[in-house]
Amino acid sequence: MAVYTRIGAEDMAAIVDAFDVGTLLSAKGIAEGVSNSNWLLEAQRGEDEPRRYILTMYEERTDVEDLPFFLDLLDHLAANDCPVPRTIHDREGASHRFHEGKALALIEFLPGVSVSEPTPGQARSVGAALAKVHLAAASFPQRRTNTMGLARWNQLLTDCGEEGLNLIHPELARIVKRELTSLTLGWPLGLPEGVVHADLFPDNVLMLGEEVTGLIDFYFACTDILAYDVAVTHAAWCFSDDGTRFDPEISRALLEGYESVRPLSDEERAALPLLARAAAMRFLSTRAYDWMNTPEDALVTPKDPLAFARRLDFYASAENRDLFAKEA
Amino acid sequence: MAVYTRIGAEDMAAIVDAFDVGTLLSAKGIAEGVSNSNWLLEAQRGEDEPRRYILTMYEERTDVEDLPFFLDLLDHLAANDCPVPRTIHDREGASHRFHEGKALALIEFLPGVSVSEPTPGQARSVGAALAKVHLAAASFPQRRTNTMGLARWNQLLTDCGEEGLNLIHPELARIVKRELTSLTLGWPLGLPEGVVHADLFPDNVLMLGEEVTGLIDFYFACTDILAYDVAVTHAAWCFSDDGTRFDPEISRALLEGYESVRPLSDEERAALPLLARAAAMRFLSTRAYDWMNTPEDALVTPKDPLAFARRLDFYASAENRDLFAKEA
Repeated sequence: MAVYTRIGAEDMAAIVDAFDVGTLLSAKGIAEGVSNSNWLLEAQRGEDEPRRYILTMYEERTDVEDLPFFLDLLDHLAANDCPVPRTIHDREGASHRFHEGKALALIEFLPGVSVSEPTPGQARSVGAALAKVHLAAASFPQRRTNTMGLARWNQLLTDCGEEGLNLIHPELARIVKRELTSLTLGWPLGLPEGVVHADLFPDNVLMLGEEVTGLIDFYFACTDILAYDVAVTHAAWCFSDDGTRFDPEISRALLEGYESVRPLSDEERAALPLLARAAAMRFLSTRAYDWMNTPEDALVTPKDPLAFARRLDFYASAENRDLFAKEA
Repeated sequence: MAVYTRIGAEDMAAIVDAFDVGTLLSAKGIAEGVSNSNWLLEAQRGEDEPRRYILTMYEERTDVEDLPFFLDLLDHLAANDCPVPRTIHDREGASHRFHEGKALALIEFLPGVSVSEPTPGQARSVGAALAKVHLAAASFPQRRTNTMGLARWNQLLTDCGEEGLNLIHPELARIVKRELTSLTLGWPLGLPEGVVHADLFPDNVLMLGEEVTGLIDFYFACTDILAYDVAVTHAAWCFSDDGTRFDPEISRALLEGYESVRPLSDEERAALPLLARAAAMRFLSTRAYDWMNTPEDALVTPKDPLAFARRLDFYASAENRDLFAKEA
């Protein structure tokens, strides 16, 4: 959540010209995204209406080799009527350029705000939008391995160490070990795969009222089990931030919305309880790692790993075993 | 340069409603201002065109008692055709409100970008815009003492200590002592006073081509000698950032632009060499203080105090004594 690189107005005007979007009218660094620099730009071509764009400069954490996957995916989804921003190609037709050695992409600005307290109607729309992405991406030819999968959680949590995990919560090392074992042994095979967003938190959804106006930040998108994406979105939307309160109405609405576009098979439904525990482990692992590896006096406060330990506990609890069962 | 406070979309919509600007369409935290949180908002009232605004939340460093001065000043200047943003008043007519104990103001968004490498034409426009503010503010009834004046520089530099200053540069303590003495003894009396911006760096000017579209960030504005504001603007615009290169063309254009609107008196011209040294000391003092009081591992890099020590050296040098003399 920062602008890491400074770009002077003269350089910015040259960048805007290279993307052939006219004259720069305004540029504001925006506090969006954890690991890239972003600007909200306005530019005008001739007598056209001024248009707005998001300029993203990819800092160290994004692998430039992955950019064609992320950016081509946006174009593919936008062309298939999904609410995602289009990318602007430069005068040579490229989806990204370089400025002082760093990759840059210019994408369409979309209106809408990210809700903090979703209503069931909003959750239903998000579920439907996710399903639409899953269907539309079926014809997207590129693949990308999930670099944030089970092997990575294992590695991050091993790096934390048992003592480290128990500093976060005295039971955490035991729970993590139990879960990693059961996820490894029980990982579902043969479920439908495709492009997943893999990080569809409310922050990454723009809405106006109950309408989804934009799904953004596809920088964890990859090829994986579609129902896993449903589980990630469930973990992201159906709880209070700190994971202490589960909202069954949001849960129901999210799943209904998804199935209104892409019904889940019996096998997918049966796998959801385990995939939801997997989703909780995915964010627990990065949060626990960041928690332990952020200097105490850093300006960025790491997010609380317990928020996802609580979701894990919820999903693993026997009394919630029917959470994802088809209602009669 | 950060967003310090998080405001959820629901709270943001309520704030926008309190200011009676319609429905919230978009809100992005922007990386602007050193000590406040800022958002670029878009909202729409009924069938009107959507409009953009800057929402500022005043964090600790702004004294809420000063807000009427800053905000009423914007309204006064805008009403007198100066290129400054208007403030939006809330449904009760107030220029600011409170959210969770912090003051908020909503001001008009203005197009334009902040230049890094000004041209003489741009410097001329900035000079003229500053003079326009000085004239228009003559009828503004409120006063505010300059809290960043000579007494404050003295205090900040004393806090740095001789040893501290000499760590920045081995000659700095000696130069600072000499300058503080000569500014104290030689401070000009009886020059025209009025409202000064006191911080008109390129970052605080929005431009389109050579036109000034906005003067912003009036949070150091106060009642002081008008020619001191000319000196501050001169120190801010006529050098490379690091203070190693002076641009005589920019200097000439800036002063010409100013005088095209408000000619300087002989007394003001005569005082400019000393006021320019004062302007350099003002930024040297805060930068030296921040330099010495920023933890080494802080994410914010303090700005180099030497950049203003070099300007001070330039202004104090005998060979530049005719810099502000009226050209024949």
